[in-house]
Amino acid sequence: MQLARVIGDVIATCKDPNLVGQKLLLVQPLDPDHKPVGRVLVAVDSVGAGAGEEVFVVRGREASFPFLPAEVPTDLNIVGIVDHWATEGDDRS
Amino acid sequence: MQLARVIGDVIATCKDPNLVGQKLLLVQPLDPDHKPVGRVLVAVDSVGAGAGEEVFVVRGREASFPFLPAEVPTDLNIVGIVDHWATEGDDRS
Amino acid sequence: MQLARVIGDVIATCKDPNLVGQKLLLVQPLDPDHKPVGRVLVAVDSVGAGAGEEVFVVRGREASFPFLPAEVPTDLNIVGIVDHWATEGDDRS
Amino acid sequence: MQLARVIGDVIATCKDPNLVGQKLLLVQPLDPDHKPVGRVLVAVDSVGAGAGEEVFVVRGREASFPFLPAEVPTDLNIVGIVDHWATEGDDRS
Amino acid sequence: MQLARVIGDVIATCKDPNLVGQKLLLVQPLDPDHKPVGRVLVAVDSVGAGAGEEVFVVRGREASFPFLPAEVPTDLNIVGIVDHWATEGDDRS
Repeated sequence: MQLARVIGDVIATCKDPNLVGQKLLLVQPLDPDHKPVGRVLVAVDSVGAGAGEEVFVVRGREASFPFLPAEVPTDLNIVGIVDHWATEGDDRS
Repeated sequence: MQLARVIGDVIATCKDPNLVGQKLLLVQPLDPDHKPVGRVLVAVDSVGAGAGEEVFVVRGREASFPFLPAEVPTDLNIVGIVDHWATEGDDRS
Repeated sequence: MQLARVIGDVIATCKDPNLVGQKLLLVQPLDPDHKPVGRVLVAVDSVGAGAGEEVFVVRGREASFPFLPAEVPTDLNIVGIVDHWATEGDDRS
Repeated sequence: MQLARVIGDVIATCKDPNLVGQKLLLVQPLDPDHKPVGRVLVAVDSVGAGAGEEVFVVRGREASFPFLPAEVPTDLNIVGIVDHWATEGDDRS
Repeated sequence: MQLARVIGDVIATCKDPNLVGQKLLLVQPLDPDHKPVGRVLVAVDSVGAGAGEEVFVVRGREASFPFLPAEVPTDLNIVGIVDHWATEGDDRS
């Protein structure tokens, strides 16, 4: 998974039927120092994250597991909201 | 998923039987400022997007979900047409 | 999927039994201006492409769909030969 | 798989139900000279690795195999703790 | 798939039960000129490759196909030993 921050959302009236009712969020991947790294992506959200929150996202086929048996066509899903993380020798939140 | 713009199409007479009848579109991934980022890719389209439209695409195994039970051999599918997106503190369309 | 050109082939006597009889081609991914982009990869071919032809390739799990029910251990498959592609305002082949 | 070092952990009270009880570790991918390469990622752990240990991680759908039949929504799993590795002509640990 | 050279191996006493008995090899991806490209990775091997040999590797879910019905948690597998490869106008081995 990847650390990320929710930075916005996407409105799409016309979308795949299995995405109807799914919130679509813009997420910016982060490094352990909370700095942006890599491309902004579009994620669905199975944990109720809000704008500005730090989360972690899962990619690929696994991103759709929380919606089974519905076959939601997503490749990125927010699966946790981060309280804090810590690396050797320090504590970061 | 990834924000992208439809920039063209691909004509291929000889292709896998499960791709026959599928529109093949060239898509340019975008960043939140609508600027191109990364490689142009070839996508199928399950929502009827047209040239110049901003969309979001899903990659990998999930790209073929909308076509089940047909096993369409695609790794990229346009699954939504973007009305607009917004990031913290501003509104972009 | 990704635009690519077939630039050669690979001979391998010793290989996984499910790859026996599969042609193994070297493909160079292309941008819309027909210029090389990214790494040369090894693909199987379900459409009969030849050296020098422009094609599009599918990656990942989907690459093996055309061979089902055989479980061919490939992550890249040529699934179409390109006649031409066109982008906004011009026509490229 | 990829060589990596466990450099920390992530605390998340609110997460997908199938991740409850899973330790979430920060891992830094390594090159064969033990130097960091690429982004820090979040992994689950099926072998009991601890901070500072060198491990190897598996990505994608396969990362969730060790948890079957539970469908754990992870795309990265620590599947081994490295004793040492060796390259042609030398021995590194 | 990707061309690669076997450059070493990894010893791991503590690993996922489904990896026990699998040889773990370090592989360096190669370009068509036999030069290293990209990160060194850890692969399992279903064809009996040895140190220094040029091979091709398959990534992702497909990497575990040769071990079915065992669900080996690997995302990279050596599926062929290269005799030689050829590109337009020359012959390389």
